[in-house]
Amino acid sequence: MIPHHDGSPLYVSTLAPALGETVRVRVRIPHAWGRAGIVRARSNPDHEPAWTDAVLLGADGGWDWWEAEVVVANPRHGYRFMIRRDDGRVFWLNQAGLHEIETLDAEDFALVAYPAPPAWMYDAVMYQVFPDRFARSSEADTHPTPEWAIPACWDDPVDVLAPGRSQQLYGGDLPGVIEKLDHLVDLGVNLLYLTPVFPAASNHRYDASSFLTVDPLLGGDDAYVRLIEEAHARGIRVIGDLTSNHSGDRHEWFLSAYGTPAAPAEEFYYFTDEGNTEYISWLGYPTLPKFNWASEKLRERFISGPDSVVAMWLKPPFNADGWRIDVANMTGRLGDVDLNAEVRQLLRETMIAINPDTLLLGESTNDAVSDLQGDGWHGAMTYPSFTRPLWAWLSDPQTTSYRNAEGDEVTEPWFFGQPIGGIPRYTAAQFVDSVTRFAAGVPWRVRLGTMQPLDTHDTARFATHAGEGTIPVAVGLSMTLPGLPVVYAGDEFGAVGVDGEASRTPMPWGTEGEPGVAARIALYRDLVHLRRAHPALAGGGLRWVHVDEDAVLFVREAAEESILVLAARGDVEMTVPADALAGAEQAQALYGAAAVDAASGVVTISARGPVFAVWALPGVRMT
Amino acid sequence: MIPHHDGSPLYVSTLAPALGETVRVRVRIPHAWGRAGIVRARSNPDHEPAWTDAVLLGADGGWDWWEAEVVVANPRHGYRFMIRRDDGRVFWLNQAGLHEIETLDAEDFALVAYPAPPAWMYDAVMYQVFPDRFARSSEADTHPTPEWAIPACWDDPVDVLAPGRSQQLYGGDLPGVIEKLDHLVDLGVNLLYLTPVFPAASNHRYDASSFLTVDPLLGGDDAYVRLIEEAHARGIRVIGDLTSNHSGDRHEWFLSAYGTPAAPAEEFYYFTDEGNTEYISWLGYPTLPKFNWASEKLRERFISGPDSVVAMWLKPPFNADGWRIDVANMTGRLGDVDLNAEVRQLLRETMIAINPDTLLLGESTNDAVSDLQGDGWHGAMTYPSFTRPLWAWLSDPQTTSYRNAEGDEVTEPWFFGQPIGGIPRYTAAQFVDSVTRFAAGVPWRVRLGTMQPLDTHDTARFATHAGEGTIPVAVGLSMTLPGLPVVYAGDEFGAVGVDGEASRTPMPWGTEGEPGVAARIALYRDLVHLRRAHPALAGGGLRWVHVDEDAVLFVREAAEESILVLAARGDVEMTVPADALAGAEQAQALYGAAAVDAASGVVTISARGPVFAVWALPGVRMT
Repeated sequence: MIPHHDGSPLYVSTLAPALGETVRVRVRIPHAWGRAGIVRARSNPDHEPAWTDAVLLGADGGWDWWEAEVVVANPRHGYRFMIRRDDGRVFWLNQAGLHEIETLDAEDFALVAYPAPPAWMYDAVMYQVFPDRFARSSEADTHPTPEWAIPACWDDPVDVLAPGRSQQLYGGDLPGVIEKLDHLVDLGVNLLYLTPVFPAASNHRYDASSFLTVDPLLGGDDAYVRLIEEAHARGIRVIGDLTSNHSGDRHEWFLSAYGTPAAPAEEFYYFTDEGNTEYISWLGYPTLPKFNWASEKLRERFISGPDSVVAMWLKPPFNADGWRIDVANMTGRLGDVDLNAEVRQLLRETMIAINPDTLLLGESTNDAVSDLQGDGWHGAMTYPSFTRPLWAWLSDPQTTSYRNAEGDEVTEPWFFGQPIGGIPRYTAAQFVDSVTRFAAGVPWRVRLGTMQPLDTHDTARFATHAGEGTIPVAVGLSMTLPGLPVVYAGDEFGAVGVDGEASRTPMPWGTEGEPGVAARIALYRDLVHLRRAHPALAGGGLRWVHVDEDAVLFVREAAEESILVLAARGDVEMTVPADALAGAEQAQALYGAAAVDAASGVVTISARGPVFAVWALPGVRMT
Repeated sequence: MIPHHDGSPLYVSTLAPALGETVRVRVRIPHAWGRAGIVRARSNPDHEPAWTDAVLLGADGGWDWWEAEVVVANPRHGYRFMIRRDDGRVFWLNQAGLHEIETLDAEDFALVAYPAPPAWMYDAVMYQVFPDRFARSSEADTHPTPEWAIPACWDDPVDVLAPGRSQQLYGGDLPGVIEKLDHLVDLGVNLLYLTPVFPAASNHRYDASSFLTVDPLLGGDDAYVRLIEEAHARGIRVIGDLTSNHSGDRHEWFLSAYGTPAAPAEEFYYFTDEGNTEYISWLGYPTLPKFNWASEKLRERFISGPDSVVAMWLKPPFNADGWRIDVANMTGRLGDVDLNAEVRQLLRETMIAINPDTLLLGESTNDAVSDLQGDGWHGAMTYPSFTRPLWAWLSDPQTTSYRNAEGDEVTEPWFFGQPIGGIPRYTAAQFVDSVTRFAAGVPWRVRLGTMQPLDTHDTARFATHAGEGTIPVAVGLSMTLPGLPVVYAGDEFGAVGVDGEASRTPMPWGTEGEPGVAARIALYRDLVHLRRAHPALAGGGLRWVHVDEDAVLFVREAAEESILVLAARGDVEMTVPADALAGAEQAQALYGAAAVDAASGVVTISARGPVFAVWALPGVRMT
């Protein structure tokens, strides 16, 4: 047991302070660790340390509670605690943990005085849909096949090689999504994220030819309006997907400037020759010309103007609930230019002006910390803070080879786009270390908005390589750790896929009754409902109670109710001090098969593994 | 032994790449650790990972050398190494060390394509002078005592309490400094840093009343010209001290605007009332009104204009060699405004236009990492990356109490401005962990420009609390770890002082012959000369060879010669693998009393502690 603080309401008097506001911050110190004579909060206003004394509020259940006041001086206001224990040793507590040596500003706890995210973000469970592969309505039969497309039947295998890779068209559409909305209701998800719906020359539609209309192949604007209305009627919000880094090379703006020097839209892109035929594009793909955000005109057309792209889809008749921004990490960045902060802040300002109750997520698939300080993105679509370490812990090394199209046994040499020779092998402790490392630089509030998928349309499917019995562990962790849970459509049907192309499988509608599928859907339904039924899983604090090679035990703590979570790959027989789990004798099993014995002054937890188990505990009393 | 890379020339083909340049980076992998099948460099251009394969160059002395090419895409171009060992385990190497879990972008190695620092920076050993307390020429007797001053005789004790604290005037002057330049030559230092020389209403002169003239009490402009000429003639460069965060409240600009709404200089400050009588000041001290860097006019007058403050002192007739910027950490920062990067970049651009062979250091006394990415400051005056952990390791707990003015025994409750109850106690390993933690986010080149003082005019003197026999260890480390060594005038005389006021002791000229003082001066002279005689101590790599509770052993490696350094608080008897110290059998003792035995296939180092010892080793052969 060590002192604890996090950004949750048990410890922080507000998650949405104004600049200049005084916030009360609390830290708990377990008696078993030691008594403190002096506790102080150390802020860093304008990059110069400032100190406030904490006062001892009282003791409860073997813990002292201390409280200090912190004045929010900067929009991202970092603070840490200094604890001088009675034995004279000095400790620092920050988001990376407890330290006896001094700590980095970047890993301070942080209050955020930028405008708050929508309150519904904290309770959201996301369901991700890739429109071409989700559901095909009868209307789709009436659409002519575009010249670029290679039509596929719903049961055809996914073609992962070019040209099929981006041109194979299954013809899923938005009316199809509408027809299946009750599946989402059944699962319990309440936020639908659609990858792009703009017209394009590919099945993924990230190469938009316009941002001003919905692809007629998907049913056009009317279908989009209807989808969002139908979703809202079911309590499901909808966010779209927008490429702020680039457009398609068939985009109306690009076409107007390509080969036409001095065209008005020339400045939207990085043309590199006099004739406007050469240009910078995303990772060198010529179909995806990169935007130049130095252009004020682009800013106006895309973001800030009254009829901007960003604005129009949030307004009637569409009323979308926000955006997931594609390649957010590279947006506005090129060589010695970095306009990323300006673009993300402008995006959010525009959205607030139209409807502050909207969500803004940025894709940043690797370390997203530098961009996740609360000034624009409410959270990230990112993998190192949850997804990749989870895979590394729970994948089965025996399943990481497969037969390729030629029938050869192949070991997947990539891991989420990283050529590191396959899936690394982590212990449970390394999983926790990874989560901690990539969360330590992110304010709590932004952490809660950061997606924690098992997989997405850009990755292999988790189930492809999952160790035996670990799928409930993985899904369970995505629903119970702080962050925005994500179900990538198809995972609940047991879909597999060895990479981000193969994972774009058409939904196997009609198989819901098959035993394996039914059980998997039930697993998702149960865990999504668990998440949504217990607010502590959305906004409660996070305290790791026990971590070892094979297992993690943590508690999400709140005043009304706390939730205890066990996740293990192997059998469990662990003992933790009673003070680490106050109220364990009243633990009420909510999920999974594991035993809690709090009879003997310590808490013993045992289970056959792999196991994912959840209990309700009494809320944490603040003295 | 673990794989090793750092930013030094053994591992990086240039320290001053241009944007777009291809740089070769090398990593060494010890056979005793394992063989690697795949080694890759992972860059992050525009915040998106990019990979290049390393090739095995060959092996030497039990190490494999690998090399990869990296194209410098951004002005601060981060990179790390991925090493897949033949046992299938994947490792990441970055500035924080070797990891099996993924690592943070912020701790990548980093190439810097911003304009390079002056080449002389790497070989500089700084001597810091506080003009009022350094030396008083006979001319000083002719100066009338200003109205604010409380005159003191050279032998008077320093008055640490207000009003004497800032008003006690000893009358040191620049002709006095000139008279003592040969002392600097004797010590071997080659960079003189003077705290402010502008007219002011205090002994420290940080409250400048003008930036356009040298205080007549110090001898005026002529004395400054003459000092720099005399210093240059002795191979000593001179940098000044400038407050970019604030001026004094008697400054000509401030006076012109104070109480005068709409005065031209009004916009230079943050007046908060209509009458211009209330204003933001440094930490609330009304004598130090804070600059508002949103003012273009201020930028022009202070930095960028042809006759700017920054410019004039670098040009003839003054020809100063650079600036140390006071309160650099807070400059341009206030609430939701952060213009710091703009100001520091503009400062450097201006200096380059006048004379690129100048140095720019920024004061940032706590974590300076965020501002130290090479875009402005060449280095920092900062304490957590060297000074504070050194104190925490080498201070004697028995000496951290003292008798105050009332004669009471007092334990110093502050530690470098931090109210943490005294000097913390670190092991040698914690010292190394601290150095690593605060260096991990700083590009190598900027690390080399970052000051490593034992103390300054703002801190207590190290000798005050030094453990018995540890002063050579501390001075030795300041001269041998990567960074800019600093001697704060008086340390070489054995001066003490319990805080940043008490440490501003007048130099005890005339005591040089006393045995204790003579020995201390000799210690400094020997260690400064050691530093300057061995280029590997300036620019060589840093590889920790052995670290334990009491001792550190490291090597500064270069092609021509490497330098082995032992620093320990207690007795030493350590054994390291022979491959960790190639050429140890040829070790040539340069300093200190310790034995190296490389006869038996391992290297054994033994000494009575405390000890600081240095050896020359053969240079590192690159295959």
